[in-house]
Amino acid sequence: MIEDRHKSALLEMLGDKGVIADGSDMAGYQTGARYDAGTAALILRPRTTAEVSQAVAYCVRNELPIVPQSGNTGLVSGSTPDLSGTQVVLSLDRMAERFDLDLDNRSLHLDAGFRLSDVNSRLEKHGLFFPIDLGADPRIGGMLATNTGGSRFLKYGDVRRNTLGIKVVLADEAGSILDLTSELRKNNTGIDWKQVFIGTSGAFGIITECVLNIEPLPKQVATAYLVPASGAHVMPLLRAMEDRLGAYLSAFEGISKNSVSAALDHVPSLKNPFQGGNVPDYVILAEISRTWAPREGEQSLDAVLETVLAEIWETDEAPLADAFVGPAHEMWSLRHALSEGVKHSGKLIAFDLSFRRGDIMAFCDRMKADMPQAFPEVTICDFGHIGDGGVHFNLVVPKDSASASDPDFERRLRDWVFAIAIKDFNGSFSAEHAIGRKNQAYYDLYTQQKIKDLAQGLKAITSPGDLGTVRFG
Amino acid sequence: MIEDRHKSALLEMLGDKGVIADGSDMAGYQTGARYDAGTAALILRPRTTAEVSQAVAYCVRNELPIVPQSGNTGLVSGSTPDLSGTQVVLSLDRMAERFDLDLDNRSLHLDAGFRLSDVNSRLEKHGLFFPIDLGADPRIGGMLATNTGGSRFLKYGDVRRNTLGIKVVLADEAGSILDLTSELRKNNTGIDWKQVFIGTSGAFGIITECVLNIEPLPKQVATAYLVPASGAHVMPLLRAMEDRLGAYLSAFEGISKNSVSAALDHVPSLKNPFQGGNVPDYVILAEISRTWAPREGEQSLDAVLETVLAEIWETDEAPLADAFVGPAHEMWSLRHALSEGVKHSGKLIAFDLSFRRGDIMAFCDRMKADMPQAFPEVTICDFGHIGDGGVHFNLVVPKDSASASDPDFERRLRDWVFAIAIKDFNGSFSAEHAIGRKNQAYYDLYTQQKIKDLAQGLKAITSPGDLGTVRFG
Repeated sequence: MIEDRHKSALLEMLGDKGVIADGSDMAGYQTGARYDAGTAALILRPRTTAEVSQAVAYCVRNELPIVPQSGNTGLVSGSTPDLSGTQVVLSLDRMAERFDLDLDNRSLHLDAGFRLSDVNSRLEKHGLFFPIDLGADPRIGGMLATNTGGSRFLKYGDVRRNTLGIKVVLADEAGSILDLTSELRKNNTGIDWKQVFIGTSGAFGIITECVLNIEPLPKQVATAYLVPASGAHVMPLLRAMEDRLGAYLSAFEGISKNSVSAALDHVPSLKNPFQGGNVPDYVILAEISRTWAPREGEQSLDAVLETVLAEIWETDEAPLADAFVGPAHEMWSLRHALSEGVKHSGKLIAFDLSFRRGDIMAFCDRMKADMPQAFPEVTICDFGHIGDGGVHFNLVVPKDSASASDPDFERRLRDWVFAIAIKDFNGSFSAEHAIGRKNQAYYDLYTQQKIKDLAQGLKAITSPGDLGTVRFG
Repeated sequence: MIEDRHKSALLEMLGDKGVIADGSDMAGYQTGARYDAGTAALILRPRTTAEVSQAVAYCVRNELPIVPQSGNTGLVSGSTPDLSGTQVVLSLDRMAERFDLDLDNRSLHLDAGFRLSDVNSRLEKHGLFFPIDLGADPRIGGMLATNTGGSRFLKYGDVRRNTLGIKVVLADEAGSILDLTSELRKNNTGIDWKQVFIGTSGAFGIITECVLNIEPLPKQVATAYLVPASGAHVMPLLRAMEDRLGAYLSAFEGISKNSVSAALDHVPSLKNPFQGGNVPDYVILAEISRTWAPREGEQSLDAVLETVLAEIWETDEAPLADAFVGPAHEMWSLRHALSEGVKHSGKLIAFDLSFRRGDIMAFCDRMKADMPQAFPEVTICDFGHIGDGGVHFNLVVPKDSASASDPDFERRLRDWVFAIAIKDFNGSFSAEHAIGRKNQAYYDLYTQQKIKDLAQGLKAITSPGDLGTVRFG
């Protein structure tokens, strides 16, 4: 699907290791983490920003569409080629050389192709980490292009908040390099251009280097399962925790009974952590943490958490029906098993929604009330980041049901859920997974025309070439 | 300087209270907080976003240049008219009606014309505040347009980090309203357009409404003066504090001896806080704080700080020469008197620089070494936010010196300081005051051509009309 002269020219430019043209070697670059499999014209694996620039310039001048790919762990078809066989995948997987740690500045200047796990294992010996906590193990460039959030957003924020600078290659005929690798924390000398490239799936440029804020590792962690007295008590509980704990509070994750059951049914290593095996209708996993090391004669962090929970227990609002503090590792193991459990309990149709925090439970109630009429075969297995308004709203239909094999079913279900989430609750159709081909139709449907016009204008001045999987204009 | 027909049309549109045409009533809108006095053609004071839109559309269609003005407390001539007498000042000072607090979401949706102090006094009864700590009392819209930082940046970040949404009026012929007032904390459904309007001095649009993140008020605060063993020990000291205290650490402010002396000399209410009156060469004001309320039988936060300082005292690096914990109010009163003191000690030429944190002391050393040869009359009175790399680098010359009356002196001094800060230390010429007319020449000098080209393109697609005091293109 790609002319031999292009293949030769790119081979010449990037060398043997820099180009994959063989079908079987291309497979891993063509298939997404959970969804879709496409067909690429060619895989490019440049090693430096200069090589990315040359390759991009060549592709733009020859009208070859480019799909940037980082760790390829995303869930929205944002980094894989479509079925046309005409798209060139540009992978960052060989760009992992520069790793400059500045301990005084608490910042890290690195190539965009490092895996998150590699970054954190290198930082650990300095007592530091990049505080974006994810289930997957993406490469850093893709984390920026997706603006990932995760379970500790409440305390540390998203990737955007933790990015000081980037280097970007634009898809113009020169493959222009935009050097925005400032290492400054405070700098107000113009438009903060890096923001345009963060969270936009590589449509406006390919991020090849980054400067990240890094944080001291917590030295104490305590966790508890909290059973709210009712759905209406979840927000009073969160507010009572934030009021008392402030920056101590590092996670406040909501877990529904159905998602716990799915995990218990399908993840054999998981033990039922609830007394008598009775799974509550809804449970909060709360975590507090601090960089303060344990010191002799001091209260443990578990004791601090116990104190707070006892106080909240006594308040007039009485938001708690039950609460127990336990080992962090065990308590998180349930949380981490949810995705896996839900995936194996039927055909999964997953939503990554967000709301004002106070609207989450109301939205879930509305869904529980309306779903049986609208889509009777659907089981709701929601869990999510209540502390920042994010909900992994998972819907499951039995694999052997008529709906599971109805090609139009998923689309109708998505349309219905999004309409309620967005129109009735002012929610978002993508809290932390970005857009990709998977959400393109909803971007088109729910984005103001003026915003699309602006995006088209921005595209023209940054990367006029055919870049990425999303059309913002 | 403005045609009567325009005056009449705008009066008709905005009403008597909405337009000021009389010279003496215009004075307050023409003069900046510290610098410059200009001449406006007219002052407009719309009350709603719809009125801003109408007024802007009228001005654009009639080619009247617009200068948006918020609290007018900035220090870079970013909100005052020039001397031409042709610019229309559009003030936000009547836009302070909507104030919608969402306690569950910990967010505040409000009109952009509220003063910071009003916002915080309304929030206080809920145990909340907007965590940007400034000496001045700006209006919120201007804080967004400037992306102000302040003394607690280290813990809470800047305005950008604490903004969830905005509403903006664009300077096009329609006065288009861009509604970006999302109240979501996690939302990755396209370009984060609000970022373009934050920190860009109103050149791309006028912010009329905002949604802010708000934070629980600290319930305990402890402060200490720390005397580092030498300039080279400042960073080890900061790292030791961050490693032990993490998110407890809410300020780490550096204060030079000269700036203390200036404050003691010129602020009569200020007492010398140092033993025997001996002001150290350099002192750090460190603050720790937490939302955790004092509980019986627990260590006070002062005791926590004492513990940490004792531990740091014993480390091999021995970064401390002296340290004493004291009442927060008294300790901050010195810090807050520095600006006033420096301003009265001669002709002040102030710089708002930033560096990688590890470069701050090296830059100051270089200045101390080179200044006596280069500009012998100058006294350096620096202080700043060491924790985030910001330095208020103040230079003072005697009021009766030849230099003070040499019109070219300030320019030569600025050129020299900026060249070293930017070229030799990769610093910023504006850490937190933004650009304004005052820094325009340095933006022009130190900004890559590609960035200027992009800015020009962005200007054309957002606000093609004549808006603001800065030319980014």
